[in-house]
Amino acid sequence: MDEELGALFNPRSVALIGASANPGKLGHMILRSLRQGKFKVYPVNPRETSILGLQCYPSVSAVPGTVDLAVVSLPSETSVTAVRECVEKGVRIVALTTSGFRESGPGGAALEEQARRSVSSSGTRLLGPNTMGVLVPGMGLDTLSIPSDRLERPGPGGVAVVSQSGAVAVSFVEKASAAGLGIRAVVGLGNKADIDENDLIKYLGADAGTTCIAMYLESFSDGQEFVRLARSVAQDKPLVLVKSGRTARGAAAAESHTGTISSSSDRLVEGALRQSGVVRAYDEQDMVDTARALASGAHLRGDRICVVASAGGFGVIATDYISSRERGVGLRMAALSERTGTELRAVIPSFSSVSNPVDLTLAVTDRMYDDVLGTLIKDSGTDGIFMSLELQPPNVTKELVDITIRRSRESRVPIVVSAFAGDRTREVIRALEQGGVPAYPTIWQAVRALQALAERGAFLDRMKKRRGKTP
Amino acid sequence: MDEELGALFNPRSVALIGASANPGKLGHMILRSLRQGKFKVYPVNPRETSILGLQCYPSVSAVPGTVDLAVVSLPSETSVTAVRECVEKGVRIVALTTSGFRESGPGGAALEEQARRSVSSSGTRLLGPNTMGVLVPGMGLDTLSIPSDRLERPGPGGVAVVSQSGAVAVSFVEKASAAGLGIRAVVGLGNKADIDENDLIKYLGADAGTTCIAMYLESFSDGQEFVRLARSVAQDKPLVLVKSGRTARGAAAAESHTGTISSSSDRLVEGALRQSGVVRAYDEQDMVDTARALASGAHLRGDRICVVASAGGFGVIATDYISSRERGVGLRMAALSERTGTELRAVIPSFSSVSNPVDLTLAVTDRMYDDVLGTLIKDSGTDGIFMSLELQPPNVTKELVDITIRRSRESRVPIVVSAFAGDRTREVIRALEQGGVPAYPTIWQAVRALQALAERGAFLDRMKKRRGKTP
Repeated sequence: MDEELGALFNPRSVALIGASANPGKLGHMILRSLRQGKFKVYPVNPRETSILGLQCYPSVSAVPGTVDLAVVSLPSETSVTAVRECVEKGVRIVALTTSGFRESGPGGAALEEQARRSVSSSGTRLLGPNTMGVLVPGMGLDTLSIPSDRLERPGPGGVAVVSQSGAVAVSFVEKASAAGLGIRAVVGLGNKADIDENDLIKYLGADAGTTCIAMYLESFSDGQEFVRLARSVAQDKPLVLVKSGRTARGAAAAESHTGTISSSSDRLVEGALRQSGVVRAYDEQDMVDTARALASGAHLRGDRICVVASAGGFGVIATDYISSRERGVGLRMAALSERTGTELRAVIPSFSSVSNPVDLTLAVTDRMYDDVLGTLIKDSGTDGIFMSLELQPPNVTKELVDITIRRSRESRVPIVVSAFAGDRTREVIRALEQGGVPAYPTIWQAVRALQALAERGAFLDRMKKRRGKTP
Repeated sequence: MDEELGALFNPRSVALIGASANPGKLGHMILRSLRQGKFKVYPVNPRETSILGLQCYPSVSAVPGTVDLAVVSLPSETSVTAVRECVEKGVRIVALTTSGFRESGPGGAALEEQARRSVSSSGTRLLGPNTMGVLVPGMGLDTLSIPSDRLERPGPGGVAVVSQSGAVAVSFVEKASAAGLGIRAVVGLGNKADIDENDLIKYLGADAGTTCIAMYLESFSDGQEFVRLARSVAQDKPLVLVKSGRTARGAAAAESHTGTISSSSDRLVEGALRQSGVVRAYDEQDMVDTARALASGAHLRGDRICVVASAGGFGVIATDYISSRERGVGLRMAALSERTGTELRAVIPSFSSVSNPVDLTLAVTDRMYDDVLGTLIKDSGTDGIFMSLELQPPNVTKELVDITIRRSRESRVPIVVSAFAGDRTREVIRALEQGGVPAYPTIWQAVRALQALAERGAFLDRMKKRRGKTP
């Protein structure tokens, strides 16, 4: 494991350069967050002796003992000096959260180059500049500039997020919290003057606490290296990537946003990603949805899906999306075995459909759904189950959530849920997520999740076959 | 206007056949709802003299005076007799909310045929069977089987919904409420034994209270007639249609769900719909999103979009979706005029991008957004504006919502918003919706809305050119 980056995820000591006694300042808010962490905190500010009850140091060099991580919250001009001091002190990682560097024009680019030179060939690594920093729920490490009463933080878990856009990272945090998804870490790449996506894939790929890596990139630092690393990591854990700047106009926008050039054709990128086992997503919502599906650890062993719903209309919409290539995901509808048909006929209303989609109608009960799932998870012609979970039918109760979780645990194939429960939809989704069942508030999102599990399965299958051939 | 169907939307008297004194029964719950309505209510039940303080009648024929609408909530066998009595009484519309008809097999189909024959060549029309009935917020008319504490009802407005699936209708009600979208009516078609989508398009097309018609269909009663009617109505008001059963497997599922055959090829359907000015949507969420966009009354006069965002990453994602044909909507990014560029340069940070997307960065303020919108709505090269409204940046306040609404009112081109405001997102979307600005919680939904406005604009343009040619 790359011990250098370990200081970003498991620091024993954190200095905040630019800590402020003024509650209106960012340097105060971040200090307030850092105090909650499982590490020593050293506020640095030459004009204060103590802030929030913590002893304050005039400079990072004055801090006693080692500093694993220094967060710099100073104007761009002075922050360059702070970076130099951190190098002298032997700080392991400097997170430069300030903007006003390369993204702001030639003057900023020159400052960024100074900061980069300071750390190059030193033992110190630089995150950013222009990064939101890092959030590690398990460590209580949080340098986000949005207070927690305006942005709920997710709990600890296995999904690591690496983002070249602060807004996409913040959006991930918000949606992960809403869905109850556990997070290993969220890292903002910022301008990538030093630490880049390849450093992080390498670290997180080896990190036992990370079960899934989700990335948002507008440019690759070194695309070939990315593909090589991703391919190696993807054998063990799933990777999701939103690579924006897919179009000529989008690439130009990304260039202007990040100050870097995204030169490769998207068709090339698409092919390389598929080869290397990276599951591609396309926007801020798709990124979280796909990560949630893959973080469940599941994958499809084939492309045959069984759809089960009590709302006939939802079953038809799901079937269209599953089986259409043009506007859908191009998977197949499973042909249920005769035995499955016989078993189903015994438990569902006589007038219900025992073909696929299985239509339970408004006469659905918890028990009926339990029996049907119990049958479907044994069907040898089914590789995955799409379940529309509706709490509106009169004889369905909240118990159905637990039934779904239990059947999912027993199942040899993944169950993905689209949940319709009015105001309780969010609560149902959180409960299912906690139970290891990926669940979404729309049919399309659930179908997309199945597609992600199918892509993951196809990659693992290719790798297995390849290994089989190598003596 | 078709006066027959008027009784469904503006009844002066409603009978509930199968009213129940038992609070656990559907016939009780619906009566409770109907009591809130702006019409006379007659409970019908031979075993009761009064329910919920209303005098009860032994049969519909015993009701004094005329009955505009009779809602039948009885088992399928007895409900057929009730339909016959309604015909004798001269009831104008019977809504048969019971299931157990054609969708349940040959026995049910025979019952349905009996009910259909009863009303044929009579002055009575039949809605259903197997329909959720009707919801008309402006009249307080509500026959939905889900109590309002489990499903919030939307307020009155211009969007009329016609659905062949109860679940899709319920989902529309839920999402319309959440977004603050006003509803003219929601009608469940059920098995379409008599009243079908063509009857309703004809009525709603002429109905002054209806500004937009949103439909979910699994089969067409008469596809050619549908296209003819739609084309005529679409000159005046927008139509949205989810036609499911697009794929072979989906069509088979629809057939089994509704008991009707959906024979036409989807490619044929797609072409005919486009010709007739129907904007197609593809699922339960897309249906509401598209209806909300079109109900604003706006359309695009061209395909040149300007993107403005404070989060650079969101601007890039939106740009990709706008300009990609393969995975996006294939519109164009506007080339801003020189004058627009000069004006923008004066109001946004020196390091921000004045190309398109316009990147306001985290330095964004309410005032800056106001000035930028003021400039963009005058740009002659722009046909529509995609705005990412983020409330997280430190110098943005809730005031930005009102600014957006004001600028949208002044604007010659539509503004569509994707809103990022954490827990306040729903509230922001509702406020914008009330202010006539279509707003969505994701980038993709907002881009799709622009696509719908572009389709609508292209249709109106074709019609105008055609009229120009006719002497």
